[in-house]
Amino acid sequence: MDLDSVRRLLERGEEEIENNSIDAVSSKTEFFDHLTLQGIQIDVIEPGRIVCSMKVPRCLVNSDDNFLHGGVTATLVDIVGALTMYTVGAQTTGVSVEINVTYLDAAFPDEEIEIVGKVLRVGKAIGVASVELRNKKTGKIFAQGRHTKYLAVSSKL
Amino acid sequence: MDLDSVRRLLERGEEEIENNSIDAVSSKTEFFDHLTLQGIQIDVIEPGRIVCSMKVPRCLVNSDDNFLHGGVTATLVDIVGALTMYTVGAQTTGVSVEINVTYLDAAFPDEEIEIVGKVLRVGKAIGVASVELRNKKTGKIFAQGRHTKYLAVSSKL
Amino acid sequence: MDLDSVRRLLERGEEEIENNSIDAVSSKTEFFDHLTLQGIQIDVIEPGRIVCSMKVPRCLVNSDDNFLHGGVTATLVDIVGALTMYTVGAQTTGVSVEINVTYLDAAFPDEEIEIVGKVLRVGKAIGVASVELRNKKTGKIFAQGRHTKYLAVSSKL
Amino acid sequence: MDLDSVRRLLERGEEEIENNSIDAVSSKTEFFDHLTLQGIQIDVIEPGRIVCSMKVPRCLVNSDDNFLHGGVTATLVDIVGALTMYTVGAQTTGVSVEINVTYLDAAFPDEEIEIVGKVLRVGKAIGVASVELRNKKTGKIFAQGRHTKYLAVSSKL
Repeated sequence: MDLDSVRRLLERGEEEIENNSIDAVSSKTEFFDHLTLQGIQIDVIEPGRIVCSMKVPRCLVNSDDNFLHGGVTATLVDIVGALTMYTVGAQTTGVSVEINVTYLDAAFPDEEIEIVGKVLRVGKAIGVASVELRNKKTGKIFAQGRHTKYLAVSSKL
Repeated sequence: MDLDSVRRLLERGEEEIENNSIDAVSSKTEFFDHLTLQGIQIDVIEPGRIVCSMKVPRCLVNSDDNFLHGGVTATLVDIVGALTMYTVGAQTTGVSVEINVTYLDAAFPDEEIEIVGKVLRVGKAIGVASVELRNKKTGKIFAQGRHTKYLAVSSKL
Repeated sequence: MDLDSVRRLLERGEEEIENNSIDAVSSKTEFFDHLTLQGIQIDVIEPGRIVCSMKVPRCLVNSDDNFLHGGVTATLVDIVGALTMYTVGAQTTGVSVEINVTYLDAAFPDEEIEIVGKVLRVGKAIGVASVELRNKKTGKIFAQGRHTKYLAVSSKL
Repeated sequence: MDLDSVRRLLERGEEEIENNSIDAVSSKTEFFDHLTLQGIQIDVIEPGRIVCSMKVPRCLVNSDDNFLHGGVTATLVDIVGALTMYTVGAQTTGVSVEINVTYLDAAFPDEEIEIVGKVLRVGKAIGVASVELRNKKTGKIFAQGRHTKYLAVSSKL
């Protein structure tokens, strides 16, 4: 996939979604990507690496503790990891094989976070990217994960 | 936490959310739990084990392939894994340390799925649950994951 | 691979190795398998499932705490997971993609342990097995892991 | 733990073990650490980071393919990850909670490899390190993993 296509996929989340407009995007088929990527900005996109940033949205915190939901963090490892693999020319989107995330700290609403995807390997069959999430100001890492895909299958993309 | 409290936390998602009513729940603080647990039914809840089921909602599929989003699967491992730990009397909700998921197959919209959480360990400090997701009719496993929490911290719950 | 071939691969470790005879096996090419499988007995071997048991050998404990080394546990997830995949007829041995292990408890020298491998999926390309390690008497799980392989490559086996 | 103590723990493997002298080290209680760290050299050791290198020993390859055994790679993630956490002053050695490894490529006998441990977090209770293994000449990563420990327990060290 060329960098512009990857950029467009990531930019789906560019607008911030206010609670009262979730309804507006909820009928799109890519609602869940849209929701979890909301307000995202691309800082760097180059073959093998993506750096993007966003403000933790209030509607994506967990109910116990009021910080970024662990499921959203895992979803960001999923999406940004996949898009990072696409920057080095994967011809197919493949399917996920494994996602893992280690949680190191909390990210609170309105905090600016930075998400860094880095290709570890993209072969014909197996692709792997690491994804690190950190506070944009302090650089403090709050989660690190990896996403492994089996790439030798076609999808609709 | 007693079983009734855990049951209530899981039942937050009991209603199916139609696209045109996502707006209605989106102002709740526990929106993301609500969204990913929508339409859930509890089949078994006992100390150390939860079995629940849901129909894969159309708004939670990925944009490439039209099957259940990998980030939603990871979120279900997160939430159901945590609630399973709470069934054996954890006094605090703790924080996530690690979530991993291996993806084995696709789950398509309107497919009935079963989510099985099982405690592997709940000590004073560390809790671990395995979570298996399968097709309810055929029993075929489409994902398996584990959720590890550090339990010795208090939260608002 | 047929069950008898898998059985032979597992039985490589059948003898207990006393410290003063490690030298005797150390020149074999499969030394590391031999070492970590030492004293192993096969209790069940059938398509998709292996149950085997062994006594924790004194030479495989960690230096800090005198219980089974975390690296040995990971190695058992590696080997027993792979052999379990071979029981359902994989034509090639493939290569490892991911191994993860959650440690739940300690296993002390001379403790009888049971290792249970279970196939989660074996397709043409991707195979996954879960491996659970427990105390043989009490059934208490002390570690659980998964091994994912990319199967569509040949090896010398 | 001070840097010199960590250095000494890592240097246990400093000698290369020839097959005919495995017997000589096999009676030591820390045999398994000794075996898997054999021939190791410390290139950098500083608070939060260790870089070390070794030549892949012939006795640590797998039997199928003649490259570094996946169990050894996992063991290196275990040991080097733990020692990296100790460089930032952990007072106790703790116990392992989770180890995961993604395998990206093969490392063949006599290949010079570099192992890089980096602290992601060391708190009072939870410590996490990432460990990357690569070919020393080319820099090509062949495995990446993370080791998570629960640190708030004492051990004999």
